[in-house]
Amino acid sequence: MKRMKLILIWCLLVAGFFGNAAAQSKHPSIMLTAKNVAAVRQGIKQYPLLQSSFNDVEAAADEALRLPIEVPVPKDGGGGYTHEQHKRNYQNILACGVAYQITRDARYAAYVEDILLNYAGRYEKWPLHPKRKENHPAGRIFWQNLNDCVWQVYVIQGYDHVYDYLTPAKRKIIEEKLFSPIVKFFTVDTYDVFNRIHNHGTWSVAAVGITGYVMNRPEWAEMALRGSGKDGKTGYLMQLNQLFSPDGYYNEGPYYQRYALLPFIVFARAVQQYQPQLKIFEHRNGVLAKAIHTCLQLTYTNGSFFPFNDAIKDKTFESEELVYGVDIAYADIQAAADLLDVAKQQKRVIISDAGLKVAADIHAGKSKPFVYKPTWIKDGNEGNKGGVGILRTGPNADQQCIVFKAASQGMGHGHFDRLNFLYYDNGGEVITDYGSARFINIETKSGGDYLPENKSWAKQTIAHNTVVVDKTSHFNGNVDSGELYHPNLVYFSPRADMQIVSATEENAYSGVKLMRTMGLVTMAGFEKPLMIDVFKVSSETAHDYDLPFWYAGHITNAPLKMNTNKTRLEPLGSDNGYQHIWLNATGTATGTGSVTFLNNKRFYTNSFLADSSTRINFVTLGANDPNFNLRSEKGFILSPPKKKSHTFISLVESHGKTNPVAETTSGFTGSIRSIKMITDRDDSTVFEFEANGKTHRVSLQYGDKDKFFTLSGGR
Amino acid sequence: MKRMKLILIWCLLVAGFFGNAAAQSKHPSIMLTAKNVAAVRQGIKQYPLLQSSFNDVEAAADEALRLPIEVPVPKDGGGGYTHEQHKRNYQNILACGVAYQITRDARYAAYVEDILLNYAGRYEKWPLHPKRKENHPAGRIFWQNLNDCVWQVYVIQGYDHVYDYLTPAKRKIIEEKLFSPIVKFFTVDTYDVFNRIHNHGTWSVAAVGITGYVMNRPEWAEMALRGSGKDGKTGYLMQLNQLFSPDGYYNEGPYYQRYALLPFIVFARAVQQYQPQLKIFEHRNGVLAKAIHTCLQLTYTNGSFFPFNDAIKDKTFESEELVYGVDIAYADIQAAADLLDVAKQQKRVIISDAGLKVAADIHAGKSKPFVYKPTWIKDGNEGNKGGVGILRTGPNADQQCIVFKAASQGMGHGHFDRLNFLYYDNGGEVITDYGSARFINIETKSGGDYLPENKSWAKQTIAHNTVVVDKTSHFNGNVDSGELYHPNLVYFSPRADMQIVSATEENAYSGVKLMRTMGLVTMAGFEKPLMIDVFKVSSETAHDYDLPFWYAGHITNAPLKMNTNKTRLEPLGSDNGYQHIWLNATGTATGTGSVTFLNNKRFYTNSFLADSSTRINFVTLGANDPNFNLRSEKGFILSPPKKKSHTFISLVESHGKTNPVAETTSGFTGSIRSIKMITDRDDSTVFEFEANGKTHRVSLQYGDKDKFFTLSGGR
Repeated sequence: MKRMKLILIWCLLVAGFFGNAAAQSKHPSIMLTAKNVAAVRQGIKQYPLLQSSFNDVEAAADEALRLPIEVPVPKDGGGGYTHEQHKRNYQNILACGVAYQITRDARYAAYVEDILLNYAGRYEKWPLHPKRKENHPAGRIFWQNLNDCVWQVYVIQGYDHVYDYLTPAKRKIIEEKLFSPIVKFFTVDTYDVFNRIHNHGTWSVAAVGITGYVMNRPEWAEMALRGSGKDGKTGYLMQLNQLFSPDGYYNEGPYYQRYALLPFIVFARAVQQYQPQLKIFEHRNGVLAKAIHTCLQLTYTNGSFFPFNDAIKDKTFESEELVYGVDIAYADIQAAADLLDVAKQQKRVIISDAGLKVAADIHAGKSKPFVYKPTWIKDGNEGNKGGVGILRTGPNADQQCIVFKAASQGMGHGHFDRLNFLYYDNGGEVITDYGSARFINIETKSGGDYLPENKSWAKQTIAHNTVVVDKTSHFNGNVDSGELYHPNLVYFSPRADMQIVSATEENAYSGVKLMRTMGLVTMAGFEKPLMIDVFKVSSETAHDYDLPFWYAGHITNAPLKMNTNKTRLEPLGSDNGYQHIWLNATGTATGTGSVTFLNNKRFYTNSFLADSSTRINFVTLGANDPNFNLRSEKGFILSPPKKKSHTFISLVESHGKTNPVAETTSGFTGSIRSIKMITDRDDSTVFEFEANGKTHRVSLQYGDKDKFFTLSGGR
Repeated sequence: MKRMKLILIWCLLVAGFFGNAAAQSKHPSIMLTAKNVAAVRQGIKQYPLLQSSFNDVEAAADEALRLPIEVPVPKDGGGGYTHEQHKRNYQNILACGVAYQITRDARYAAYVEDILLNYAGRYEKWPLHPKRKENHPAGRIFWQNLNDCVWQVYVIQGYDHVYDYLTPAKRKIIEEKLFSPIVKFFTVDTYDVFNRIHNHGTWSVAAVGITGYVMNRPEWAEMALRGSGKDGKTGYLMQLNQLFSPDGYYNEGPYYQRYALLPFIVFARAVQQYQPQLKIFEHRNGVLAKAIHTCLQLTYTNGSFFPFNDAIKDKTFESEELVYGVDIAYADIQAAADLLDVAKQQKRVIISDAGLKVAADIHAGKSKPFVYKPTWIKDGNEGNKGGVGILRTGPNADQQCIVFKAASQGMGHGHFDRLNFLYYDNGGEVITDYGSARFINIETKSGGDYLPENKSWAKQTIAHNTVVVDKTSHFNGNVDSGELYHPNLVYFSPRADMQIVSATEENAYSGVKLMRTMGLVTMAGFEKPLMIDVFKVSSETAHDYDLPFWYAGHITNAPLKMNTNKTRLEPLGSDNGYQHIWLNATGTATGTGSVTFLNNKRFYTNSFLADSSTRINFVTLGANDPNFNLRSEKGFILSPPKKKSHTFISLVESHGKTNPVAETTSGFTGSIRSIKMITDRDDSTVFEFEANGKTHRVSLQYGDKDKFFTLSGGR
């Protein structure tokens, strides 16, 4: 019924397209439109951010003019010469297109004409890329089909900019010898990618769809929107329906959410221009706007994306995708003043209708600090497959943040890290996630692709701050099994002084239930809110349970009975990632243990419940790494003796400071002493600890939303 | 004869002191003087830097007023509560003194009165500090005598500021019960420190001398200047003569030079105020000005001091000593415009006559970029004990810098690192020095003092980028032996495009001559100047020679035949620092080897001459480290087979870049191939290498100043 209705609406809308397309035949027509070019030209003189952004584009365009055109026969993989040259070419084509529109200097348009004719004369001769990989759809310009699609998304915009400059004869050559074959390549030869509900599919449909609009080929736009079968089973709209949760979360995680956004946004803008009657920005309750906002909420205050799942760690919201995202979200969807703060930090706008508005409003002083919120972001296209909990306190200049990952597997780029967490403070990562094992585009590192250690280490459970059962990764490291299940949210409270998130995972191990509750709690007597972590593991049979904490910093105190491997290191295990960990030392505590480390001039103490039979293994990453692919990360792992059920309690304080220039230090010891379990049942956990001479009691009532978390005693 | 003359001059000068002291009886009288208070008060309103600097002082003073006065019985070591409280107290006393002079708010003066009376009522009851260490002169307020002296240098200035506020009766109590006993403690009880030619002695004489001026006790000032015996054999003037080289180099190295400077400068300013006829700033050809300028030349462009010898690595010229140094150097010695650039980077001035002038001139736009110069800085009080060679190219925003250490031992804080080098580029360290093994003021790390690993690791030769013979440190790790000898300069050329430094060390090992020549050479076809390193080791008998390169970054390429210790690590040796190194892998090359690593988004390739019997050991620091005291540094060590003589040739390129936000990479491989030794004799070394299809020849003629270094072929 719902489907019938959709088809009906669709028919009406397609009818509209043809009519409208004629009305919209002026070029350029996507990010920067003919009717706004004069205003943007004027804005470049008035608004500093637009001016500096255009200066960058113009400099890139001038650099392109300065060098001879090079269109090499595709040969190299990621990072290699031909790869980088074709990448530069698409950037140059767009830069010169924009520069032409703004300056009307014909040299820029001539460059685009020349290079496109050059490609048109050669493209059809190129076979599938020689560096293509098995099980990876190949491109013809690049080793991956994906990169060819990205190329076309940029290039078609450059073409749109110089459309009016080109003679009909030249357009004919370029369209017939280059763009039509490319569209055929995408829609026919690599039909599977085009019809995949996946970010690679989005790049493919965006490339074809925008090309359809610019070349006035409505059938291509229709295929892009509704799939090759034009039945809505695949294509852009279905991708919007399925790839994001109702909260706009993309299930591969923030790094790929960012990457996936660009074609979604640029194509949405094109749809809005050519088929405004589709109301694409309102589609599915405005899911695209939510996706942009959620992507920003998935960053720390330094702009870095939370690096869970496969992720390059230095990636920030300064990346181009988010510049597009923020500009469009502000100008075309909703003008939220705090987006301007992000735009300022991005230090650029797209030279476009949207960029004009953003730069003008920043210039008018409308910017407000970006509002980071404690939030639960639902995963799953119906919002029922777990999610990501984010707890935050403090101002943007010094924010504490806990990221709790209880999302679904995230397909091939997902890690086996159910109920993992990351902890940020003081501008950076403190308890960390490895991200992916990859040196992107550095050809000497496995061609710039994911390294073998991405699978053998980065995806494995032990690489994360969550429980490993019997030294085996969640779902035995099997993606397909992981895709079948998801964690479930138990409780979330964003109350400012007592932020709590709790979730369960019952399928990562057969017969073992994992339940983790984390809090960020403001308490008298503590310099900063206290992180509270209660990880309950229950089973009918006895298991080994390991809970690692991977920290950034240098240990300044670990008052444990310590047995150090001073003259010989061996790996902690032989597989599931353990083969990559050197065991440096093993400590034991009596009741309560603690580890204090110094990170960026501030101290952190993790105090944990540990009886004398619990081993605290201090480890360094780097074993079985013949190619120096792994970073030397450090961690400690809590390992109680084999048992049926166990509850880990860890309390992390942020305290004190050092100033190496002034050589002053304060507060180098934590204040928590004597953690004691009072009662621990299926439906509740109650424990006490001492701090600053007072006893504090924490009570967790898992079945009672009203008394889920209570703190008593000390305050 | 010279001595007689000095005594004569001295007698004349002392006569002048009494007369002048009366004329100078107005308080305050040291950094901020009575006649300038009104101008400084006015300047605070006019000059932003003076204003923000005063705001900081005032905020500190207000914070002092807000809290109850605490003068605890001395109990804790460095970093502990009583240590930090007494440190805060002296800072508060000076801050409140200054705040009183500027604002005339009597509450600040009352604070100083109260706390000084409090100290006066308790000081004489305090015995030697309970945490004092054997062979370390004790203090009474602090565990080290040194800290007591520092305390007094600050406190006497605070007293000077409120002198006129205090009644004569109060002054009498404070002077008789606090300052006089302190002076007695310094000059009598710890006579040895007071009369030592050492930076601890400087703090002691400065404390006593300034106290003498402020309290009008000329005999104390005289003792401070000329030693307890008033014979000039010890005391401040002799320290000025002996502790600095004619170039103003302090032989413990930059970290301690900075530290030593403060009492030298503050006391010099006091001498200038009270005994201007001594022309203290002109003493020994203006050695104090040279010391300040040399201290600045001993920093990289990020402000960090070169961390050779015992040094805390995060220390920069923002440290207070250099704020004093720059202000006084500019205002009282010579107004060099580039000092204002440093003052701007320090972001503060001292609220003083000098600070006023600096802030005013910055406000007037007189600042010029600090001029970093390639330079040879002579060591030894006669300038004949080796020195430090600094090669520099490029603008301050992206400077390449080689620091070549051919200085003398540097007493107890010296490391066994003859002919060591450090390499900086792109804003930071690339080939590194460990600095000291110390977490200053963090009591849980050996009381904040030097760690045991400072001796067992940081001082050892293998911790540095220089040759180790037979796995034994220079001078067998014996300071006294090291003090007997020094390297000798062979050649230095600061020519902009071909900077060269060469020196020998013939005594570090019996029967082994070390000679190292380093260059920073601008060459066509290279993105950045090439670092050339030729290390010649000669002996009549066969030895093991190890040359380590400790690098910061991550290896991206090491095209060697590699044998990796994948599942078991063992230390590389059992003593001389080798016991702290894990051996990760051993590589071999055929003729020319190379290692490329990525550091701060730029690539570095070290290409070296290595036949197939040379082992290249890849190592990580951290063995035999039961208390997690060592950082995980990484290095590789070139180890040719045992032989009589050997010449290491290493060429380091800086190339390419990565941009993780834009995900672009270029130039990830170095360009040097096929290094070949052509001839290698006692008096010359000639070698060739290929780069970018050209053959380049380097010729070193050690005995020929005119043809010392020539490059031919490629360019």
